[in-house]
Amino acid sequence: MLYSDPMVAAKQEGNAILLISCPDQKGIVAKLSNFIYENNGNIIHSDQHSDPEKGTFFIRIEWELGGFKISPAKIAEALIPIAKHFKMRLDLRFTSSKPRVAIFVSKNDHCMVDLLLRHKEKEIRADIPLIISNHPDLAKTVKSFGPEFLYIPITPKTKLEQEKKQLKILEKFGIDLVVLARYMQILSRQFVSAFENRMINIHHSFLPAFTGGKPYHQAFERGVKVIGATSHYVTEKLDQGPIIEQDVVRVSHRDDVEEMVRKGKDLEKLVLSRAVRWHLENRVLAYGNKTVIFD
Amino acid sequence: MLYSDPMVAAKQEGNAILLISCPDQKGIVAKLSNFIYENNGNIIHSDQHSDPEKGTFFIRIEWELGGFKISPAKIAEALIPIAKHFKMRLDLRFTSSKPRVAIFVSKNDHCMVDLLLRHKEKEIRADIPLIISNHPDLAKTVKSFGPEFLYIPITPKTKLEQEKKQLKILEKFGIDLVVLARYMQILSRQFVSAFENRMINIHHSFLPAFTGGKPYHQAFERGVKVIGATSHYVTEKLDQGPIIEQDVVRVSHRDDVEEMVRKGKDLEKLVLSRAVRWHLENRVLAYGNKTVIFD
Amino acid sequence: MLYSDPMVAAKQEGNAILLISCPDQKGIVAKLSNFIYENNGNIIHSDQHSDPEKGTFFIRIEWELGGFKISPAKIAEALIPIAKHFKMRLDLRFTSSKPRVAIFVSKNDHCMVDLLLRHKEKEIRADIPLIISNHPDLAKTVKSFGPEFLYIPITPKTKLEQEKKQLKILEKFGIDLVVLARYMQILSRQFVSAFENRMINIHHSFLPAFTGGKPYHQAFERGVKVIGATSHYVTEKLDQGPIIEQDVVRVSHRDDVEEMVRKGKDLEKLVLSRAVRWHLENRVLAYGNKTVIFD
Amino acid sequence: MLYSDPMVAAKQEGNAILLISCPDQKGIVAKLSNFIYENNGNIIHSDQHSDPEKGTFFIRIEWELGGFKISPAKIAEALIPIAKHFKMRLDLRFTSSKPRVAIFVSKNDHCMVDLLLRHKEKEIRADIPLIISNHPDLAKTVKSFGPEFLYIPITPKTKLEQEKKQLKILEKFGIDLVVLARYMQILSRQFVSAFENRMINIHHSFLPAFTGGKPYHQAFERGVKVIGATSHYVTEKLDQGPIIEQDVVRVSHRDDVEEMVRKGKDLEKLVLSRAVRWHLENRVLAYGNKTVIFD
Repeated sequence: MLYSDPMVAAKQEGNAILLISCPDQKGIVAKLSNFIYENNGNIIHSDQHSDPEKGTFFIRIEWELGGFKISPAKIAEALIPIAKHFKMRLDLRFTSSKPRVAIFVSKNDHCMVDLLLRHKEKEIRADIPLIISNHPDLAKTVKSFGPEFLYIPITPKTKLEQEKKQLKILEKFGIDLVVLARYMQILSRQFVSAFENRMINIHHSFLPAFTGGKPYHQAFERGVKVIGATSHYVTEKLDQGPIIEQDVVRVSHRDDVEEMVRKGKDLEKLVLSRAVRWHLENRVLAYGNKTVIFD
Repeated sequence: MLYSDPMVAAKQEGNAILLISCPDQKGIVAKLSNFIYENNGNIIHSDQHSDPEKGTFFIRIEWELGGFKISPAKIAEALIPIAKHFKMRLDLRFTSSKPRVAIFVSKNDHCMVDLLLRHKEKEIRADIPLIISNHPDLAKTVKSFGPEFLYIPITPKTKLEQEKKQLKILEKFGIDLVVLARYMQILSRQFVSAFENRMINIHHSFLPAFTGGKPYHQAFERGVKVIGATSHYVTEKLDQGPIIEQDVVRVSHRDDVEEMVRKGKDLEKLVLSRAVRWHLENRVLAYGNKTVIFD
Repeated sequence: MLYSDPMVAAKQEGNAILLISCPDQKGIVAKLSNFIYENNGNIIHSDQHSDPEKGTFFIRIEWELGGFKISPAKIAEALIPIAKHFKMRLDLRFTSSKPRVAIFVSKNDHCMVDLLLRHKEKEIRADIPLIISNHPDLAKTVKSFGPEFLYIPITPKTKLEQEKKQLKILEKFGIDLVVLARYMQILSRQFVSAFENRMINIHHSFLPAFTGGKPYHQAFERGVKVIGATSHYVTEKLDQGPIIEQDVVRVSHRDDVEEMVRKGKDLEKLVLSRAVRWHLENRVLAYGNKTVIFD
Repeated sequence: MLYSDPMVAAKQEGNAILLISCPDQKGIVAKLSNFIYENNGNIIHSDQHSDPEKGTFFIRIEWELGGFKISPAKIAEALIPIAKHFKMRLDLRFTSSKPRVAIFVSKNDHCMVDLLLRHKEKEIRADIPLIISNHPDLAKTVKSFGPEFLYIPITPKTKLEQEKKQLKILEKFGIDLVVLARYMQILSRQFVSAFENRMINIHHSFLPAFTGGKPYHQAFERGVKVIGATSHYVTEKLDQGPIIEQDVVRVSHRDDVEEMVRKGKDLEKLVLSRAVRWHLENRVLAYGNKTVIFD
């Protein structure tokens, strides 16, 4: 009864992407690939990784749904026996369904605008229905792109209350991923845990160097010859979450703080947009305080 | 009768690496992973790629031989039915066996010395028993590292004859891979075809820019802002073979040809050594005029 | 009579930037720095370069105008004796005056939008009053940024005539720099010569590799491991002008043409915007078919 | 009496390089360039920088000695009036005289061997007469290159005493620059102050991230996506001295510590050799805890 009508199956569109981590042992790839083959699926990509130190196995498999004997709605159920047997943490997505993204901003708009432009150019396959800001400044910019702009001011006193409001709104909008695009507020433990491994921040330094505020000023003071940017999942501990992507650019004694900020902005845009795109394509698997990136 | 004694199997060391290309179709991963699982192998790495345009499937699978039920000597035979069924081009190697490498040089020694140093530091897992040169200059340098140095001068007249001699020597030494480490001779079609996809050259430009002689001079004349180096398999057509690796470094108006040569030398060493290492680890799969690099 | 009123001089704002090339000989720096010192100027930056092969001397000097005894309008005149003596090609600009830029586009908008955003963020200090396109598609996008959008269609028959029209418009708008931001038309010799070393193009490959059309397709076919972008002054010969900036990004067998295009777009934006900024800051000195970049 | 015989002057070889820092004020470039011009010198390179925040002026001037009216031995004396007037910190070197370098190592030889190879290839214009190590392991390797190898073991007890011995040896050998090429000992304040801004260390991380021991292990634990290397002048505070050069290389989840070490070694060699070369070419000017690099 799992199997769908072949006429229906043939019309299924897009691919299924499975992201799995579990204790390493023999037979995982065999079991998974048999499951797909027996149900008439064609594997497009498959990449696996093992962490021998922790004995953990990771895999990303993508297969075509056209002709697959199981309808998307029932694939997860059909995978339960395998998942149980291997104690898998399992994440299943379909390229036909678009994740929903909310962007949090303060006053700097370059990262947000970059994401909205990439969305418009279809580089980022998601819906971005919502921008939330603790300042009203970017309302007009957001309007020109389409998403709803919600101004939710934060003070130390109102913070927890306002976060609850934000969470309700995120739920109402059916948000799958929160992107902190230079949002200058530290979020509470409660908020963070509601979006564990589903909230991406951009920090304007190559972490773990220059955590906290004003990293370009810190970099200038230290006299470094490269500056960087880091995108990471947000955890309770500030700037300590699993790193998704980092990149750097050379600076010299000729670059003052203003010039570092200018160079850094280009870097932040690239590093954040890569992380968001990879996450949305199910390429990122966080474990412990690290990530596996299936490229 | 394929199956070896479990006592023996348990003692097998190292990994098997399978590199496969074939027409893309369903069930390949399932069949291969079942084969390994049923024979008690543990897959360490598995990475696949499909070229949808050409309909070609590529995979690199590495599994542990400890406990594998088939002895290394018989694995290829055991794979025949699968290989036939899927029309596979198949390459099987074992990490326990060391490939044998010959390096061809002329007068520039930096690439050769770099490879010999990496070999000494065990970055390159191979034996390098032989250096062949069309000049006697590097004999002493080679001696200090250990390999045999053979001086085989080439003139337009003696070329084909000397190449035959070289081929005989390569055969005698059981050479698996020839590395042209700034060897300033163009090899004949016969020689090239004897080491198809087993002969790596380093060209000191980012191909296809600046083919042929004196690429740094060409780059200087053109006023480029980056220079590069390219390692590739050697084919009949000069500087046209499948590219394995490329990298670049910035230059400016301050860099004259001499300075470009100096910067380029570091690049050549890195780019050539990566290609050689990847080839020796069975990570490179040439097809048509391109390569798949399983990293 | 050259000397301005000290009261007026004290109020002069910004800096003067002098860009000079001439035959190399002794005393150039001494003469220039004396000229500035004697007129009470403070040198902020000074960078020189010599091409020993061609015997050419290059220098960029920037000094503060506050307190300078000569008014900006008369500095060029005051420099004539030195310029004549050393046979200098001399270019003088003031940071207080904004150059005027026109952008030419076709249908791709990413480079144009990037420049307009940077202009808005004051990264590019210039006025951008005019966008010219051979297609009407980007009218609406341009409107939201402010500049005038002129649709000037080109056919092989109307080309020369339309170019004359364009030249008149550029003159009317007082344009100092033309930027070809993925403008898909080859310009005539007449047009090019009117904006010699004042027209910048972006080509989506690391020149001299992959000149002409569809460079990403060419790169994909060749199987390169890095792709690039090149900004250069436009000369009569297609893709042969003096290179201002180049940069590259890694690609792999996993990147199809579409993915190369996506990666390349980020590169094009960076490489073009650097060239435009450097040109506008008087940091680029073209000579022969090369450039000196004073950074 | 300052002026040398024109016949002698004409035969002077090489260039003079002047490295200057002083409080910023008008007329510095004019005075210096006049001094050189009046004494018949031809400026080859000249690059200046100002730190507006600290009000400091920096310049590097290089001019040809052929025909210069002052003999090298008397140039410093002749510059005294200018130096006093502008309160200059002044460093004068001649390309004809070779600085003398000592390399300190422990057991890792890759950075030392790289420097010795570059020295052999004349990339590093200096004499390297001396290698000092706290372990005897590299004696044989050093011997094959030529320098004297001194084994000076260090224990916590003997440290200060052994350092005194080292200082005497460095004096005896006339050492201008000490290079710590993965020397695993922390030097005392006394030792450090004797070679202030004349002792270069390589640290195998992008400082200020991962100071102290085992930086690759730290990087692996943190899950960073780039690793780096930093060359810096040694100061009393561990890993806190003025940074001369940094560079990075990408890593992924596939790279274990061993692989990071392998990738890092190439980086360390490049980053250390650049710093050493730049220092020897008088391109590095340390001020406060930063450096100006005249490239």
